[in-house]
Amino acid sequence: MTDIAKHNRMANAIRFLAADAVEKAKSGHPGLPMGAADIATVLFTQFLKFDPTRPHWPDRDRFVLSAGHGSMLLYAVHYLLGSEDFTLDQLKNFRQIGALTAGHPEYGHGAGIETTTGPLGQGLANAVGMAMAERMMAANFGDDLVDHHTYAIVGDGCLMEGISQEAISLAGHLKLNKLIVIWDDNGISIDGKVSVSDSTDQIERFEASGWQTISIDGHDPAAIAAALATAQEAERPTLIAARTTIGFGAPNKAGSEKVHGSPLGKEELEATRKALGWSHAPFEVPSDVLDAWRIAGLRSGQARKEWEKRLASADAEIRGEFERRIRGDLPTGFRQAMQNLKQKLAAEKPTLATRKASELVLETINAAVPETIGGSADLTGSNNTKTSQTRAITPEDFSGRYVHWGIREHGMAAAMNGIALHRGLIPYSGTFLVFSDYARPAMRLSALMKQRVIHVMTHDSIGLGEDGPTHQPVEHYAALRAIPNLNFFRPADVTETLECWELALEARETPSVLALTRQNLAALRASYESENLSARGAYVISDCNDEPQVTIFASGSEVGLAVEAKAELAAGGVQVRVVSVPSFELFEAQSEDYKASIVGNAPVRIAVETGIRMGWDRFIGTDGIFIGMTGFGASGPYEELYRHFGITREAVVAAARAKLAKA
Amino acid sequence: MTDIAKHNRMANAIRFLAADAVEKAKSGHPGLPMGAADIATVLFTQFLKFDPTRPHWPDRDRFVLSAGHGSMLLYAVHYLLGSEDFTLDQLKNFRQIGALTAGHPEYGHGAGIETTTGPLGQGLANAVGMAMAERMMAANFGDDLVDHHTYAIVGDGCLMEGISQEAISLAGHLKLNKLIVIWDDNGISIDGKVSVSDSTDQIERFEASGWQTISIDGHDPAAIAAALATAQEAERPTLIAARTTIGFGAPNKAGSEKVHGSPLGKEELEATRKALGWSHAPFEVPSDVLDAWRIAGLRSGQARKEWEKRLASADAEIRGEFERRIRGDLPTGFRQAMQNLKQKLAAEKPTLATRKASELVLETINAAVPETIGGSADLTGSNNTKTSQTRAITPEDFSGRYVHWGIREHGMAAAMNGIALHRGLIPYSGTFLVFSDYARPAMRLSALMKQRVIHVMTHDSIGLGEDGPTHQPVEHYAALRAIPNLNFFRPADVTETLECWELALEARETPSVLALTRQNLAALRASYESENLSARGAYVISDCNDEPQVTIFASGSEVGLAVEAKAELAAGGVQVRVVSVPSFELFEAQSEDYKASIVGNAPVRIAVETGIRMGWDRFIGTDGIFIGMTGFGASGPYEELYRHFGITREAVVAAARAKLAKA
Repeated sequence: MTDIAKHNRMANAIRFLAADAVEKAKSGHPGLPMGAADIATVLFTQFLKFDPTRPHWPDRDRFVLSAGHGSMLLYAVHYLLGSEDFTLDQLKNFRQIGALTAGHPEYGHGAGIETTTGPLGQGLANAVGMAMAERMMAANFGDDLVDHHTYAIVGDGCLMEGISQEAISLAGHLKLNKLIVIWDDNGISIDGKVSVSDSTDQIERFEASGWQTISIDGHDPAAIAAALATAQEAERPTLIAARTTIGFGAPNKAGSEKVHGSPLGKEELEATRKALGWSHAPFEVPSDVLDAWRIAGLRSGQARKEWEKRLASADAEIRGEFERRIRGDLPTGFRQAMQNLKQKLAAEKPTLATRKASELVLETINAAVPETIGGSADLTGSNNTKTSQTRAITPEDFSGRYVHWGIREHGMAAAMNGIALHRGLIPYSGTFLVFSDYARPAMRLSALMKQRVIHVMTHDSIGLGEDGPTHQPVEHYAALRAIPNLNFFRPADVTETLECWELALEARETPSVLALTRQNLAALRASYESENLSARGAYVISDCNDEPQVTIFASGSEVGLAVEAKAELAAGGVQVRVVSVPSFELFEAQSEDYKASIVGNAPVRIAVETGIRMGWDRFIGTDGIFIGMTGFGASGPYEELYRHFGITREAVVAAARAKLAKA
Repeated sequence: MTDIAKHNRMANAIRFLAADAVEKAKSGHPGLPMGAADIATVLFTQFLKFDPTRPHWPDRDRFVLSAGHGSMLLYAVHYLLGSEDFTLDQLKNFRQIGALTAGHPEYGHGAGIETTTGPLGQGLANAVGMAMAERMMAANFGDDLVDHHTYAIVGDGCLMEGISQEAISLAGHLKLNKLIVIWDDNGISIDGKVSVSDSTDQIERFEASGWQTISIDGHDPAAIAAALATAQEAERPTLIAARTTIGFGAPNKAGSEKVHGSPLGKEELEATRKALGWSHAPFEVPSDVLDAWRIAGLRSGQARKEWEKRLASADAEIRGEFERRIRGDLPTGFRQAMQNLKQKLAAEKPTLATRKASELVLETINAAVPETIGGSADLTGSNNTKTSQTRAITPEDFSGRYVHWGIREHGMAAAMNGIALHRGLIPYSGTFLVFSDYARPAMRLSALMKQRVIHVMTHDSIGLGEDGPTHQPVEHYAALRAIPNLNFFRPADVTETLECWELALEARETPSVLALTRQNLAALRASYESENLSARGAYVISDCNDEPQVTIFASGSEVGLAVEAKAELAAGGVQVRVVSVPSFELFEAQSEDYKASIVGNAPVRIAVETGIRMGWDRFIGTDGIFIGMTGFGASGPYEELYRHFGITREAVVAAARAKLAKA
């Protein structure tokens, strides 16, 4: 058999596994796997450094299918390479509950899925983060241990999403030469031809961001191989624009939107078999083809073994550090360093904005935890995310630990996902809390993928003052608390800030948001306690001697206000308890007894927070008193805004007294 | 005085009004107004078609300050032109509560603010929407009535945000030749030089999207004027890349990030006065300068009067229609057409996915309301947003009523804001509900700006099935209900879909989201009622004869499930009431009596919804039973997913019985 004939049969194996699986599932996307099968065949059998027998090998090349709807491409390829996860049975159960072969690739469902994709553009930005992580890890551990490429296949949709620009411009700026993006340029989107809605010259666009670009016929295996070889030699990221036919091989539907997201149908599938000369039954891969794939699958085994030898012969300390960081364990000194700082802060009781408290805590964290990578979306001085340890990375030098992400909140969050997924580094970065909206699609994915990504989000309320309602979060607390598996922290003072940071770093499978103030807050904890009280999510920060008549629940900057209100009420003889609520999520994870004890049954329950009420009924009941926001904020000095919106000590005291009088 | 000397003094008036106002407010952004003062002077005094005596003139040019932090530029210019809103007193109250001169320009605070800006990139996309609206309105009413430009000043931050790519590529595709964007290319961002985080060749990038580009010295008034004149003649959108010095004139701080977002300080402000030869006290504009501005302000009066004559002499029907659409009134036939359809549907009781019901209702709406502009972010066949009346617009023909937005959810939402702000059109468009996250920053702004923008968001739950958790909304109901002044509708059947559409169109100052199913739903209303029951937000859709022992609250697809559960419980002799909750927001707007009657006091209260519990305590209390989601969804056939997650008739019945047994 000629090389080209062999290639075609290998690619057709992908095509029919995909088309047959979609057919069996009665739903799915055959168009991309059929169109990109040639690209995948060349990439996975000749270029990608990947060992299916050790699919978690840290120095493997990363592959991201950013066009995640083409998931069957990934499942088919990994089955063909010899994956233990993606068996034929799994392929037959495509899109069924409990199968590894979900509609879109889900991280954690099987080795070879490097990230969850589907929401368009995310994978491209993840890949940028992975390529950044590779460069930063290599700067830490040397090319002997870290030296791999990151590949991504992106579709027209990925490139139309705004996040793609953030990813592309950042990758170009950083000259991420080991990032190779293949654009499956099939000219088709769901509404028809891409030209219905877009006329962008993508080549020119990538070049404007400093990329190398190569245009090829995406069905020509020699051209694909030549392009990949050229890409590997570049000193900047490469876009391979590969013209393909969506649904390649389907005689009546190929090249049209009809083949994008629906089964081919029995008749067309039959005709495709005939057209491509594929006489095999569904899910049957002839042995010559399977053998060819399996042999290719073993291709990187030698390189992997040599890498293992290099690791084994490395300095024991370096090896230990490398392995620790890949496992994701925190360094042994971390907890003690935090306790030492906590004691110091308990003694000093500094009044600080929690964003400044965060900076102070980070100074200790970054000294104790060398794998943190800080950053900010162009708000470094406002987010206070840069410490003495964190020199910025540059295109020429990745040994730094800080990223000037630019004004790219969405791309930043998605690239942080990529950094976390790569393993070896813990990304944290900053923006204003209100701009969590810009980053939200990526934050959702870090929660879904269970990644340790830490968002430092300052200017967390009307307390930011004059910048006004476009910059003042109101609904954001609720909206972020709503995301499953995301810990939203709103610390009340310097000690809670430390505790929340500790929790964020220790949450190996949960991303965190730290909502921090611009304005100063007094230290509230009476004395040092080694226990991380914030870990309970809600706890009594200031109690009364008798059964409480009033319980005031608050978070962040409003806890101090609650404590002041308590003082005034207590002076009048009222028994008042104050509960600080740094995290709804951690509170819900406590025992039922603990939760009941915190909620309590005081006749008057009040919650105070500079956001909307949503979620607080959990603590105060539907008849509780909520003092907070009911609409958007306003522009003005922050103390005046608190008064304007009636979020004051006086308002809490008055509401408590009025309700007590009625009770 | 030479022309250039006169220009400089006019521009310096902006500079010092801005710098002095920031100084007085002790916060704000002097850098942009000082840097872009020359551009603004040329634009507003020689090019912009704007009459300060009739600032709402429908055919005025639109100006968008996308870099909204430079708000003082806008306030200063409008004061100088002779605005009735932006008086010297207002300028002196910059950034104070209640002043029109908020930290960022707030739509509604005064004529001349065409949109709220601050979150970067939004204004650029708003401007694209305004330019689209101009073309579409001109196609409807002719160039005699609609023929204006849209100008925007954007900063480096706007261009780094991903949304800018969506806006730029769409504008280029549509050849929006009357859109002129001026890039204030000062090379500075908050973290320092832009080159710290970005190396994009913006000229090449815009050209890749089909724009005309012109590079100029942004402090050369002749060059600015020449560029604007060239831009006005183009057959495609124009980018004027204007190199400027941020904080122009400040001898020690100009050209650095120090002048971006803080007052200059007394000393530097004094030095700037000296450097620019400006001897006037703060807020004092010498009469020659003010006169020159005021004369320029009257420049467009004649054009405005001629336009008014043309309108007055237009066919009475056309004039009436134009004026109605600018006012935003719905056509007289609208309500009756909806009632007729409602009667028909009540008789036919079709089982339909609510996305199909929406399409059916839209067929009536689009016939009755000629100003609706439909669209979809490349999901036309899935969102069912296209009807027989809505031919797509093309770069050559804007007489259509449908926009193929491409895979640009964020840009779409922001451009829809621009269309709504322009007035004359009502934009609605579609994507999957889960991708509301991509559009969220723009959706928040439509709520803040009180714009009638309608989001048709289909595939609203695990009911979409196999596409899996990346595509299944879980937290989105809560997250969208959290946004102030946004109506989130989740209709339960075809009649509620009609009612929710009616409410969305009638909500002149509130954007709406219609969350619609992919899967079929039975018609639930027993009979035709002329009253729009969904307007109450929650209402009894199926009652019992006695006092209810069980009340089941549900929205959307789960209302049918609740009704089925009721039937089974009722068969066992239990008194069950079912409340449909299409909108939390409209429910909260009802009388306290009504709300109390709906919440009721049944011993067993259950809520059923395919989202998280957050928000439902309002109906069921903190001890109520919630049957819904607690985490992300999964990939599989939808009926199986409902069973997998325990959202079933059986689960509702079992929970009700268990609680009744305990009660």
